[in-house]
Amino acid sequence: MSYIPVRPDPSLPPVTVNLYSDTQTRPTPAMLDAMKSAETGDEQHGDDPTVWALCDRMAALLGKEAAVFLPSGTMCNVVALLVHCRPGDEVLAHRLAHIITSEHGNHAALGGIMMNPLDGERGLFDVAAVEAALRPRSRYAPPQKLLEVEQTANLGGGVVWPQAQLDAVLARGHEAGLATHMDGARLMNAVVAAGIPAAEMVAGCDSVWVDFTKGLGAPLGAVLAGSTEFISEAWRWKQRLGGSMRQGGVSAAACLYALDHNIDRLAGDHTNARTLARGLAQLEGMKVEQPDTNLVFFDPRGAGLTAEAFATAMRQQGVMVSTLAGRVRACTHLDVSAAQIELALTAARAVVAAA
Amino acid sequence: MSYIPVRPDPSLPPVTVNLYSDTQTRPTPAMLDAMKSAETGDEQHGDDPTVWALCDRMAALLGKEAAVFLPSGTMCNVVALLVHCRPGDEVLAHRLAHIITSEHGNHAALGGIMMNPLDGERGLFDVAAVEAALRPRSRYAPPQKLLEVEQTANLGGGVVWPQAQLDAVLARGHEAGLATHMDGARLMNAVVAAGIPAAEMVAGCDSVWVDFTKGLGAPLGAVLAGSTEFISEAWRWKQRLGGSMRQGGVSAAACLYALDHNIDRLAGDHTNARTLARGLAQLEGMKVEQPDTNLVFFDPRGAGLTAEAFATAMRQQGVMVSTLAGRVRACTHLDVSAAQIELALTAARAVVAAA
Amino acid sequence: MSYIPVRPDPSLPPVTVNLYSDTQTRPTPAMLDAMKSAETGDEQHGDDPTVWALCDRMAALLGKEAAVFLPSGTMCNVVALLVHCRPGDEVLAHRLAHIITSEHGNHAALGGIMMNPLDGERGLFDVAAVEAALRPRSRYAPPQKLLEVEQTANLGGGVVWPQAQLDAVLARGHEAGLATHMDGARLMNAVVAAGIPAAEMVAGCDSVWVDFTKGLGAPLGAVLAGSTEFISEAWRWKQRLGGSMRQGGVSAAACLYALDHNIDRLAGDHTNARTLARGLAQLEGMKVEQPDTNLVFFDPRGAGLTAEAFATAMRQQGVMVSTLAGRVRACTHLDVSAAQIELALTAARAVVAAA
Amino acid sequence: MSYIPVRPDPSLPPVTVNLYSDTQTRPTPAMLDAMKSAETGDEQHGDDPTVWALCDRMAALLGKEAAVFLPSGTMCNVVALLVHCRPGDEVLAHRLAHIITSEHGNHAALGGIMMNPLDGERGLFDVAAVEAALRPRSRYAPPQKLLEVEQTANLGGGVVWPQAQLDAVLARGHEAGLATHMDGARLMNAVVAAGIPAAEMVAGCDSVWVDFTKGLGAPLGAVLAGSTEFISEAWRWKQRLGGSMRQGGVSAAACLYALDHNIDRLAGDHTNARTLARGLAQLEGMKVEQPDTNLVFFDPRGAGLTAEAFATAMRQQGVMVSTLAGRVRACTHLDVSAAQIELALTAARAVVAAA
Repeated sequence: MSYIPVRPDPSLPPVTVNLYSDTQTRPTPAMLDAMKSAETGDEQHGDDPTVWALCDRMAALLGKEAAVFLPSGTMCNVVALLVHCRPGDEVLAHRLAHIITSEHGNHAALGGIMMNPLDGERGLFDVAAVEAALRPRSRYAPPQKLLEVEQTANLGGGVVWPQAQLDAVLARGHEAGLATHMDGARLMNAVVAAGIPAAEMVAGCDSVWVDFTKGLGAPLGAVLAGSTEFISEAWRWKQRLGGSMRQGGVSAAACLYALDHNIDRLAGDHTNARTLARGLAQLEGMKVEQPDTNLVFFDPRGAGLTAEAFATAMRQQGVMVSTLAGRVRACTHLDVSAAQIELALTAARAVVAAA
Repeated sequence: MSYIPVRPDPSLPPVTVNLYSDTQTRPTPAMLDAMKSAETGDEQHGDDPTVWALCDRMAALLGKEAAVFLPSGTMCNVVALLVHCRPGDEVLAHRLAHIITSEHGNHAALGGIMMNPLDGERGLFDVAAVEAALRPRSRYAPPQKLLEVEQTANLGGGVVWPQAQLDAVLARGHEAGLATHMDGARLMNAVVAAGIPAAEMVAGCDSVWVDFTKGLGAPLGAVLAGSTEFISEAWRWKQRLGGSMRQGGVSAAACLYALDHNIDRLAGDHTNARTLARGLAQLEGMKVEQPDTNLVFFDPRGAGLTAEAFATAMRQQGVMVSTLAGRVRACTHLDVSAAQIELALTAARAVVAAA
Repeated sequence: MSYIPVRPDPSLPPVTVNLYSDTQTRPTPAMLDAMKSAETGDEQHGDDPTVWALCDRMAALLGKEAAVFLPSGTMCNVVALLVHCRPGDEVLAHRLAHIITSEHGNHAALGGIMMNPLDGERGLFDVAAVEAALRPRSRYAPPQKLLEVEQTANLGGGVVWPQAQLDAVLARGHEAGLATHMDGARLMNAVVAAGIPAAEMVAGCDSVWVDFTKGLGAPLGAVLAGSTEFISEAWRWKQRLGGSMRQGGVSAAACLYALDHNIDRLAGDHTNARTLARGLAQLEGMKVEQPDTNLVFFDPRGAGLTAEAFATAMRQQGVMVSTLAGRVRACTHLDVSAAQIELALTAARAVVAAA
Repeated sequence: MSYIPVRPDPSLPPVTVNLYSDTQTRPTPAMLDAMKSAETGDEQHGDDPTVWALCDRMAALLGKEAAVFLPSGTMCNVVALLVHCRPGDEVLAHRLAHIITSEHGNHAALGGIMMNPLDGERGLFDVAAVEAALRPRSRYAPPQKLLEVEQTANLGGGVVWPQAQLDAVLARGHEAGLATHMDGARLMNAVVAAGIPAAEMVAGCDSVWVDFTKGLGAPLGAVLAGSTEFISEAWRWKQRLGGSMRQGGVSAAACLYALDHNIDRLAGDHTNARTLARGLAQLEGMKVEQPDTNLVFFDPRGAGLTAEAFATAMRQQGVMVSTLAGRVRACTHLDVSAAQIELALTAARAVVAAA
């Protein structure tokens, strides 16, 4: 098989509502203007003032000593794991975590790191799950090193961790001598949904990153934060992986723009998601998970279609959704208006009626 | 902490019954005579006739094209995984498998290999569990490459796979394009218990190994078998890991002796295990798992002692047992007689009475 | 020590001539306009038309079946090595190659790949050097897998491989069963200097990449080309390393702009380099390597300054140069005019006079 | 090709003089008696008194805090490198070192470790070579971590390091912040030849190992020594690699026997090597390297035969020698008497006469 992405199928109707992913957001003209007028320099040589501004701002926002700009969230995860762990070390993470399910085994392939998948409802786990996984150190059991959480829990349904549960889980990890890392791909959605400041929300994490290419709408980039020592080591892996940039300020300017303009508006995406979920739930047989944020997962089998069949039929109506782990996922974001949610619901009704 | 093994504590009474592990068997005088009179040569140069004899005999016994002699079962496992997998590849195995729980993460540390732990009763899993774990190939999901089974399932309780279930599971793996590997550390116990010839039992496995240092009583060595191409690649990793030997025939002679003298007698170990299990089950509150082979797992908490407390108290009585995953394990083998089983039961009664 | 880049020192005078590296080029307003008006999509989902246009164009330019867009040249190198090699495989490359000297050991750290450094004048080597390094396959010698060349040879002095020598070396590698890879960070400089079409120049390479952030002036990105099968495998590593992008078209548009506007003008950079070299050579004691392209290496010790002292003194004059392997490197590029070369020479004369 | 060793060719005449390698020594009856009567236990459980006795004795002999018994010298090397280095770290070693040339790239394959090959006469290098290889720490250059020496230098010709040169090289490594490791496969040959106590000879090494299967005549095993902390970490890798043993005392008893009986006699092997070298040097055109210890390297091309042709012809005469890096190597050891040296010379004369 080929691992090269497939080019768009010209025989398909144009996409009128794109609920495929919040990664599909295109930079707006205002964001592009910010990119065009950015002051730049050679980022890996320390000369790009816009990248420094972004890193400083993110370190402050997340309450960490330092931060580093990377091309993607996947690179943030793998860099963090490479800094925290040595080959053979074990990471405790939810069975549905992105680092386990969706990065093509990079932690193992690149770092010889091992996963210990934890169970729990909707992508979360509790202190008891952590305790059940802990083992005394020996020459036999793999050495446990890191506890990872994902905020929001994507495959759990875009779920926001109850803050007390999150704090307890992270504290239990620290107590057991584990470092803690948060995959904060959609952290700002959680921050907006929960009304808790980012720095407070991630206080228990030794490292955390935020993606700018999802609901924040930038074309490229994510920022990983942690202690100064952690970021120093992160730079070594950034260099090795090929994540060091040149005039990174062009991309960083879009991220700074997003911090100024695209955070508060996430609340609207969440409203749209709830509207969509309510509308879908009215369809006979549709099993819809209540959205915490901007992700709506549902199972259309009760309405007579598999997830794949539903997605294909929706695409024929010009509405793009994705399928993940046997469910359909619809994702709201800044390129999806309330009016488009209504269009999507109309299409869904037609698809189900025809099933 | 130190990872160096602890020397025996001279303040403890002598061990009169050693149920700690079948790895504790000491070579008998007759076996040592066989070792002394072995014809030898430089094994890695192809000159050791005794090693060749052992490899040829094991390939025939296991119904495979070729075999290679290695210093340990752990090396057999890691070599097999390194041959079957590339970095980032995923192995499906039971959550309690030795390769997941007891090899200090070597598959990840040395080969960048990832584990997908399956659930199932007593260390076994079924076709449905395999199917639930299978995923379509993509750039996101880790590439699935190998299905591993353990015979007998040690932490499952020394359980023998029902042959139909084993065959079905392995066939499902092959159908999904996975290679299959058996950790046959105690395969001969399963063969004797089930009355199925080894070659027939492992027909569905692309690679399989047998340990000679457990119930078979040799001081060192295990043999890994598979196709000629597989064994050719295995030799590269044997060399890299430092598993190539010089006058390996001294050790191989003990293995050949074990093949001649120590297989049929495993039935007696199984009888001893059943006797022990029956006796323990008569103790108030003791929860004993019915043994298939030579391993007796039990939970003494109902009798008022944790596994560790029970083991410590037994040691004071001169009886050595081990604790694994919160349970006590007693292991019968050629250095444990029926009379010693009675001694162990007497000690157990005293320990429980004093609890 | 810290691996975080150092921020610019505000106590230093402003940089008036930046000969530090061609990576310092800033995107021009016209290039930024092209970026702003690019049609984009989710690159890793196959939806970005501008990225596809860049990949198609580069595959054609380089005469390969397919190409992939990556965030950096370092990622192109490590992806290519990860596709060509398995852990333990050996790469033959010049002792001064970027992959050996300047990527923080990423091939070893991420891929378990081994280097066999070859010697040769000015970053080049010949067929005899390849032959001296070849070994018969065995279980002992590391398996040889790949032959790598760098065009232009950076630490060799920006040297262009004589085409016959390049072809012969690559053919010898193929004959020995090795794959061939070119680090073409500055390939277009070589193409312009030698007047040989790119596809012809790299015909002997199984994989090759071009950097857009050096003389071509784009802020981010490089393109790796090879067979369709190679690029399919490259996508797996792109995903693992975190090199998959979202609206990559913004960056790709700059690269397309560079292909249209910034190739022919490299000849001017080469002229500037020769002018600079001639001027420097007139300074008493200065040992200057004759530039083939846009890199001027020289040793100022005969003029009474170490490389570091010379660079520091030049910086005080507002001229930035770098030091590499004990020599000074001055690099011409699109942000350096002929007039600035004169300024740099004036500064150099002052520095040497004061030494 | 197959990596499985080739079985002996029955069409060849019997071997009457085995100069192939000192790894070919077979255990003597007295050594086998010592093995048979050894007190044993489960080595990896800390229960084998004979293994502890060997480790204690070797730690004392080498002047280190602790020691660990491993199945082979190759495992000693790879364990030591895995303890000293993290992935991406660089080792400085002679270009002809066993770890570079003869372990199938295990340091890279298993540990992601990188080699920096140094040049120097006869397998040795000097402080200047170390200094030329040292680089300042940066995000670009691979991090330098370890300096390795081989005693005796096998491919250098069995050469003993002049002690002052060895001490100076190791001290320079320490000064640069590098750890130091000695591959002491034939350390005891060096000790006997130089008349310097082992502990004094290796005082500058953080880790060092001795092979018992070469001139010392044991069938299996090597001992690696270092600080207690180093050995603690070494045990983790011993476990991962599958080097932990069960009744290791059987093999360790042979090593203890060798320490008592087979060290002083190495002087005789050296005398035999010199006799052989003198005799070979009298053959017209034969270029013989003066042996320091028990290895005689020579180039027969001046006598009209390639190394391979000479070895093949000698084998037809019943004399086995090896070829390494284009030269012939003849190795004396405890299975080669002075009379057999004369037989070998007679055969060599016949071979050259017939050339």
